[in-house]
Amino acid sequence: MREVGVGLLGLGVVGSGVWELLARNRDFLARKTGVRLTVRKILVRDPDKPRRARVPREILTTDPREVLESREVDIVCELMGGIEPARTYLLAALRQGKHVVTANKAVLAEHGPEIFQAAESAEKGLFFEAAVGGGVPIVKTLRESLSANRIRRLTAIVNGTCNYILSRMSEEGLSFEQALREAQERGFAEADPRLDLSGRDSVHKLAILATLAYGSFVPADRIYEEGIIGVDPQDLIFAREFGYCLKLLAIAREEEGRVEVRVHPTLIPEDHVLASVRGAYNGFFLEGDFVGQVFLYGLGAGAEPTASAVVADLLDAARLILSGARPTPILFRESPLSLKPQEEVVSRYYFRFSAVDRPGVLSQISGVLGQHGISIASVIQKGRTEHGPVPIVMLTHEAREREVRQALAEIDRLEVVVLPTKVLRILEE
Amino acid sequence: MREVGVGLLGLGVVGSGVWELLARNRDFLARKTGVRLTVRKILVRDPDKPRRARVPREILTTDPREVLESREVDIVCELMGGIEPARTYLLAALRQGKHVVTANKAVLAEHGPEIFQAAESAEKGLFFEAAVGGGVPIVKTLRESLSANRIRRLTAIVNGTCNYILSRMSEEGLSFEQALREAQERGFAEADPRLDLSGRDSVHKLAILATLAYGSFVPADRIYEEGIIGVDPQDLIFAREFGYCLKLLAIAREEEGRVEVRVHPTLIPEDHVLASVRGAYNGFFLEGDFVGQVFLYGLGAGAEPTASAVVADLLDAARLILSGARPTPILFRESPLSLKPQEEVVSRYYFRFSAVDRPGVLSQISGVLGQHGISIASVIQKGRTEHGPVPIVMLTHEAREREVRQALAEIDRLEVVVLPTKVLRILEE
Repeated sequence: MREVGVGLLGLGVVGSGVWELLARNRDFLARKTGVRLTVRKILVRDPDKPRRARVPREILTTDPREVLESREVDIVCELMGGIEPARTYLLAALRQGKHVVTANKAVLAEHGPEIFQAAESAEKGLFFEAAVGGGVPIVKTLRESLSANRIRRLTAIVNGTCNYILSRMSEEGLSFEQALREAQERGFAEADPRLDLSGRDSVHKLAILATLAYGSFVPADRIYEEGIIGVDPQDLIFAREFGYCLKLLAIAREEEGRVEVRVHPTLIPEDHVLASVRGAYNGFFLEGDFVGQVFLYGLGAGAEPTASAVVADLLDAARLILSGARPTPILFRESPLSLKPQEEVVSRYYFRFSAVDRPGVLSQISGVLGQHGISIASVIQKGRTEHGPVPIVMLTHEAREREVRQALAEIDRLEVVVLPTKVLRILEE
Repeated sequence: MREVGVGLLGLGVVGSGVWELLARNRDFLARKTGVRLTVRKILVRDPDKPRRARVPREILTTDPREVLESREVDIVCELMGGIEPARTYLLAALRQGKHVVTANKAVLAEHGPEIFQAAESAEKGLFFEAAVGGGVPIVKTLRESLSANRIRRLTAIVNGTCNYILSRMSEEGLSFEQALREAQERGFAEADPRLDLSGRDSVHKLAILATLAYGSFVPADRIYEEGIIGVDPQDLIFAREFGYCLKLLAIAREEEGRVEVRVHPTLIPEDHVLASVRGAYNGFFLEGDFVGQVFLYGLGAGAEPTASAVVADLLDAARLILSGARPTPILFRESPLSLKPQEEVVSRYYFRFSAVDRPGVLSQISGVLGQHGISIASVIQKGRTEHGPVPIVMLTHEAREREVRQALAEIDRLEVVVLPTKVLRILEE
């Protein structure tokens, strides 16, 4: 039985999950894989802090070099999160000739080229299944299972916190604030949930997935980003009248050699397979030129699902060590990827205008849309309200974002329009 | 650029798909993987037969040795299907030191131990992603991505033909015969569909999946097998009144060290994720001790999705060749697997009794059920019909199959019961 030494950076929620998995399924794993994974050192901030995981005191250290430079450590497993010092440690581990497993989406999305390059120079494996989708094997599916395909489309729900909040708003009619509070109380949202709610976390994950799909680094700051803050329950109710529900989607599409990458709340048909992704789950809808449509779904976060993915990576890294093989590079595209600016993206739209209740309003609004070549697919205008503006809801046919922005700027300046128009995109078929 | 030689056995639907994929995505694949896959020889029955795939005449052969023994061939890819001569060729290829890729579920399910053993002795890779689920990466997910987990449950729709027929019966109210004819006309069912309809094809696939999940060969003839022949549209209508739809499921469950494996039509709640698997799609619902629930879905058959899986395997085999690594064994369990006999399986049930229209019938039937300890969850008894027997539909609480069989044998002998009782199992939560 070959033994492979593992060094952990971090022993928080995920680190404890990994420790627990390796302990509980130890013999089973060794029998199954012919490899025994042994944790030799763990970097922690405070070795004396009481912990649930029963880890021997002597393998804890506060000195990163005891992990990164230890001869006993073959694989460095980074579970700290955040940019620094994670980035420095990952690069140091690769320089020291260690294989690396990480669950850190932020550092890969922000410093991908540097880290990918370091792995390639060192000819060491860099594994990050747990960085996206928790236990769902989306990274391996893109890197290996669908590797013979050109990926035409990727449409995914990658943030369980946002999905939980939107599910609760939609199912129970909660306000955004109520749903957020509930998510925090139940442990589905961080105390500081900004990274999730702003769409930033989804952007990080999409950057990684698009990089894998297209073989060229997709920088996070080239991805259009719109989160769920300010989503109004009213729009969920109108959407349902049209047969749609609202999801925060991460979308990548290739068409005629150009790739669009964007994260925004999106209306999807209620019978779409992504509509069935509820609560804290993640779902990934892929389309390849040969495989057709493939869908993957599972828990996108949490100690145990994430540990499942981390340990699968540790086993892959162990196989690489035992074989002495050279890992497959992540960036394979020779020519730079052409990214489509968001202004040129074509989509169908949902608009909710807030107008005064006066004859001719509908004609004024639709007139402006018509001048910009935006054609209307359907309209709901609700009867007169007691007080306040009247909502006029429209679904459009396909339109380009540039024209939409111009038209809405004009409409929002109309005297009859009293509040900024609410805009949602509709999933393209 | 390293070149790896591939020999194909068979150039039918899937073989042509593989040829087409390697031709169309040739440069893209080489750039992405650093390997060029080149087909060097193809075994066919008739080299002069006109074909859609534009294959040079000189690489076609009718002599299997020209593929199996060729020094130019590193990977033998078997796409003939059936038991013989596929089995003989697979064993010969491994003996010749070739790595093997196969899409052949039947030969693996019937002769798994012999073939797995031959691969292990030869220290060669044996890849079979395409044997189950077409382009859906279920094999790799079980072998690698979820390898850190104990698989508690696998519930899957693995036969697109049966799923298409049941979907059409349910959605359009077609009879079994009408739906089958339509499936044949649209190319979703073979001219001889017996292997699909009998449940045998699903049994083969379940044998492979359960073998991977539990690391011990699960013989096809130990799997309970019940197909969809004789499914009555009437039962689909009643099922819907209870909120269920009917799917042919392949099920494996581990409980207290014992594993049950079975294929049968099963009622599942209409909001279950497997209920959304329509038409010719396949769906795989997995539950692991760490990862929780994972679901995979995609096209389970067809030239292009299957080619996607075959070429992914070819790339894995090529990586193995380039690294000189020893492949991970498929059978890892030391002690034999304990399989639960179907008679001991516990499930909820749907019964449709056909009884004469007379007072006291319900009491007689429920009396027999009660004597066997089977308790009733709900009943629909439809009003009096003009002529013929009255259907009485019951859903039970959990019951063991042995008691169910005994009770139904007794009930079907009752004077008031005029036709054999229809029985369907309900998916356990």
